[in-house]
Amino acid sequence: MDPTDFPENKDEVIEDLHRGGLRFIQRRGLFRFGMDSVLLAEFAKCKKGGKILDLCTGTGIVPVLLTARTAAGRVTGLEILPESAELARRNVSINGLEGIIDIITGDIRHIRQSLPGAAYDTVTANPPYIKARGGALNPDGAAAIARHELLCGLNDVAGAAAYALKPHGRFYMVHKPHRLADIIAELRLFKLEPKALRFVHPRAEKPPGLVLVEAVKNSNPGVAVLPPMIVYDENGAYTPEIGGIYRD
Amino acid sequence: MDPTDFPENKDEVIEDLHRGGLRFIQRRGLFRFGMDSVLLAEFAKCKKGGKILDLCTGTGIVPVLLTARTAAGRVTGLEILPESAELARRNVSINGLEGIIDIITGDIRHIRQSLPGAAYDTVTANPPYIKARGGALNPDGAAAIARHELLCGLNDVAGAAAYALKPHGRFYMVHKPHRLADIIAELRLFKLEPKALRFVHPRAEKPPGLVLVEAVKNSNPGVAVLPPMIVYDENGAYTPEIGGIYRD
Repeated sequence: MDPTDFPENKDEVIEDLHRGGLRFIQRRGLFRFGMDSVLLAEFAKCKKGGKILDLCTGTGIVPVLLTARTAAGRVTGLEILPESAELARRNVSINGLEGIIDIITGDIRHIRQSLPGAAYDTVTANPPYIKARGGALNPDGAAAIARHELLCGLNDVAGAAAYALKPHGRFYMVHKPHRLADIIAELRLFKLEPKALRFVHPRAEKPPGLVLVEAVKNSNPGVAVLPPMIVYDENGAYTPEIGGIYRD
Repeated sequence: MDPTDFPENKDEVIEDLHRGGLRFIQRRGLFRFGMDSVLLAEFAKCKKGGKILDLCTGTGIVPVLLTARTAAGRVTGLEILPESAELARRNVSINGLEGIIDIITGDIRHIRQSLPGAAYDTVTANPPYIKARGGALNPDGAAAIARHELLCGLNDVAGAAAYALKPHGRFYMVHKPHRLADIIAELRLFKLEPKALRFVHPRAEKPPGLVLVEAVKNSNPGVAVLPPMIVYDENGAYTPEIGGIYRD
């Protein structure tokens, strides 16, 4: 995903997403998407014509990728920062996806004020990973909000997903493995039962750096831990699985 | 761990544990130990001279292996079935470990009646994996009790471990990955915070068949998901890690 176009201004680059011509504007100072968003969009499923809600959508990378990766009929992105939401709308626009993607500016802690309940088949989220009181705070406001649980913690994300999902809807999240016990506890608090986990390891012999989570609303206990996803092989090249995702 | 001795009777074999001459009697009709017990004993830690309690000890494989693998000063095994506990005592005896290992016949659901609270540095458990209402019941009583949560569920195991452990004591358990959400929920219910998870995969590209869990009593949230443990390489031979454990 190298820059393939001239930036609109010196703080922006337009990247080719290698998904049937999809492009994406990234701006300095706002959260820039990484492999976590790409893997989340790859992991999420939605029935044909279904409705997806992406929480903490930022500049809209997950909704844009989901249009290429699922047969969803409608994707809504919810973002709290007006500046990020505005860029997300431009990202929808440069790809001609206004007919599929809506970007809503709003706070997931008050999701009832902006979005209907029990209305979505699938909810996705790439939320902030770091506890508000843990780690050094990124000095940049927007980036800090994207990385730290300042405006949105796991509890808020799980609560919003449970509210928005239809009775047996599916929730997909990417997060850090060291939060796994919190993740499972918060999901269950909102009757979102973890059904699949996939750990993403930088190399086969290393601990995972990410975990992909699938939970189903009101489902019975029982979680499939999937084979490990390995990013780099012993030569430092992408494994066939990751290469396939990035080359598509 | 092949049979290396004549059985005492036709229903028994004595196996060499490849641990400094340790031997182990297995009897037809009772639970025969497998790789799960060996990996649990390898995963568990105990400080020098510390006290270990092994729940659901069966015929005593975990206590016997722990004497070779940790510097514990005292290992207690708790077993509900008198027939298994009696064989466990013979296994202690044939290895001359009476000075280190005690086998107590008792029910973990009434652990207060048989063992002191807040007394152990480490608790280990290889409990039944299968929910009492799930799956076909093994017709053999003793084997059914070892495999199914008939007399002891996750809730009982976590409660007994929390009771027996000292304030910052460590609990080690081997279980099935599909129970992971239940495992984490039950541990937290008893203030046993999951601190490390290791998934054991039969092959690198397969889902895990076992999970090793470390939890610390009264600890803060934050769990290290360790690199995957792979049992067999692409040629069907033990990986170096597993080979090392079995050859020692």
